[in-house]
Amino acid sequence: MRILVDVMGGDLPPAELVRGGIAAGRELDIEIGFVGVPAVIRSALDEESIKEGSRFSIIPATQVISMDDAPVRAVREKRDSSLLKGIIALGNGHGDGFVSPGNTGAVVVGSILTLGRIRGVPRPGIATTLPTVDDGVVVVIDVGATVDPTPRHLLYFALMGGSYARDVLGVRTPRIGLLNIGTEKSKGNKLVQHAFTLLQQSSLPFAGSVEGHNILTAHPVDVVVCDGFVGNVFLKTLEGGTSAVVHLLRAGVGRGGMRTKLGGLLLRPVFRHLRHQLSYQRHGGAPLLGVNGVVVIGHGRSDARAIAAAIGVAKRAAEVGLNKRIAQGIEGWGKVGS
Amino acid sequence: MRILVDVMGGDLPPAELVRGGIAAGRELDIEIGFVGVPAVIRSALDEESIKEGSRFSIIPATQVISMDDAPVRAVREKRDSSLLKGIIALGNGHGDGFVSPGNTGAVVVGSILTLGRIRGVPRPGIATTLPTVDDGVVVVIDVGATVDPTPRHLLYFALMGGSYARDVLGVRTPRIGLLNIGTEKSKGNKLVQHAFTLLQQSSLPFAGSVEGHNILTAHPVDVVVCDGFVGNVFLKTLEGGTSAVVHLLRAGVGRGGMRTKLGGLLLRPVFRHLRHQLSYQRHGGAPLLGVNGVVVIGHGRSDARAIAAAIGVAKRAAEVGLNKRIAQGIEGWGKVGS
Repeated sequence: MRILVDVMGGDLPPAELVRGGIAAGRELDIEIGFVGVPAVIRSALDEESIKEGSRFSIIPATQVISMDDAPVRAVREKRDSSLLKGIIALGNGHGDGFVSPGNTGAVVVGSILTLGRIRGVPRPGIATTLPTVDDGVVVVIDVGATVDPTPRHLLYFALMGGSYARDVLGVRTPRIGLLNIGTEKSKGNKLVQHAFTLLQQSSLPFAGSVEGHNILTAHPVDVVVCDGFVGNVFLKTLEGGTSAVVHLLRAGVGRGGMRTKLGGLLLRPVFRHLRHQLSYQRHGGAPLLGVNGVVVIGHGRSDARAIAAAIGVAKRAAEVGLNKRIAQGIEGWGKVGS
Repeated sequence: MRILVDVMGGDLPPAELVRGGIAAGRELDIEIGFVGVPAVIRSALDEESIKEGSRFSIIPATQVISMDDAPVRAVREKRDSSLLKGIIALGNGHGDGFVSPGNTGAVVVGSILTLGRIRGVPRPGIATTLPTVDDGVVVVIDVGATVDPTPRHLLYFALMGGSYARDVLGVRTPRIGLLNIGTEKSKGNKLVQHAFTLLQQSSLPFAGSVEGHNILTAHPVDVVVCDGFVGNVFLKTLEGGTSAVVHLLRAGVGRGGMRTKLGGLLLRPVFRHLRHQLSYQRHGGAPLLGVNGVVVIGHGRSDARAIAAAIGVAKRAAEVGLNKRIAQGIEGWGKVGS
């Protein structure tokens, strides 16, 4: 098993991502292919006293796609970028999965154009995993690959997200919910109302509509299906809500007197644990589902630990044959006529 | 000045809402018209030793539109509901504003059909006010009135939200932002990309796209413009994010030993203040902008204090002539050709 890692396109320096790759390679007992400028990667390997070889190899790339690059243009013009070279290497069978903390739009466009879609999948979706307060997880799909989907696209997000939750994350029978603004069937915009009907008619374990205020606390479903624009807003707003509370709390303790300061000191371990619970980085990358290959998108600010977690996600997806299972699920649909 | 209050359609008992109306009537020195079942209102007034009269009057209604009623049908069939009777009384000039904590969809449909729209406004929008961590406020419009808007509708939300922020909330020169999934112009779905262009070409103080992760913390703009579906998801997800943190924090303190428990005890005033800061109820109701009349929607769980705050919003909107200012803003647009 070899996972390819784009070490150039993230916000953090390549050496940090190489460290994450080495750690994951050792811990998971797999090969890692680092994609990027060879001299930079070699120097990072040297620092860790690692020799280039089959265990830790280098796939050379001279260009970098930055976070601000327009995706379609970047994919077209930066053919020798680490992001695209990684996807091309994956497509050529030089790896079992690819991880990039780079420009999400470019990963999506590059993957569709280079790897193609899984037979039957109309559009890919990015599936992110969030921790719930009961120590479980919830998968949200799509969080940004397809921003103007049709109701039918949402149906395929549901199938792919359910397969990911079951086959990779180990949720036995994932309940699927539709992100909406009320739980009654009449609620929502046209897209969501139509998708509701399609989901109800499908063979998927559809549990109805869910709302943003209790997804992490009540854990009503295991997979939340939404339009990529809405899913991205959802994700960022969740972060906004939590960071607002943390801000206010810190300010409250800072403003207080001796008693408050002492209280803050005594609760320090609780605050530290809270920060750890809220750190989505732990949960690693978000797979781009629906393309012909295991592609995992890491957060732009991914550090060594986050990139190692994303590599773990790619490894599991590759070893359970997630894409084959998705393809089988779609074939099964064909037969039952839904 | 008289504000009409629907005391039947909320989640809390009418007596609670009557108490809120009495408090607001006294504090703001205005008349209150309670809309609902007379016997119920009278008994609530009796409890507070208030005599029915011009100061605190009753507008009789025998029916109640529940939260689960389908809006269009409810408005058509429950003609004698407190919600609809209040809107009709407002339309007939028996009040200067109307407040309802009831079925949002029914308030929107009832207001459009009964009061009509402000000349030139294509669709109404609900403007909610959120507290920022720097003790300011941010207006979000629309949060649920128009779930399938066009780019042009968003342009009018921007104008109305800006007027509300300036004329009612006292923000001197409100900066307007478009809720998006990135700050570059190329980001977003078709609706948002087109709206971006319209906003840029307009005479409004447009500051570009904003994202959900820092609206309350960085306070980048004073007015956030969005599609009603996305705005409603935004609002509920913000609540979801804050409540997840509060849950985790409480669990962390509960699980801890003596030191942690003592820390929790010492920080109790900070936690209490935090709860107060996060209570959106304080910020009262959300006006339905774009209809011919001052209509303020309260949270379904509005208690006496929340309903009093919503009455305060209605009073200020009425006294500054908000709808006239919005109409003038639109006329001005006509002249400058934007």
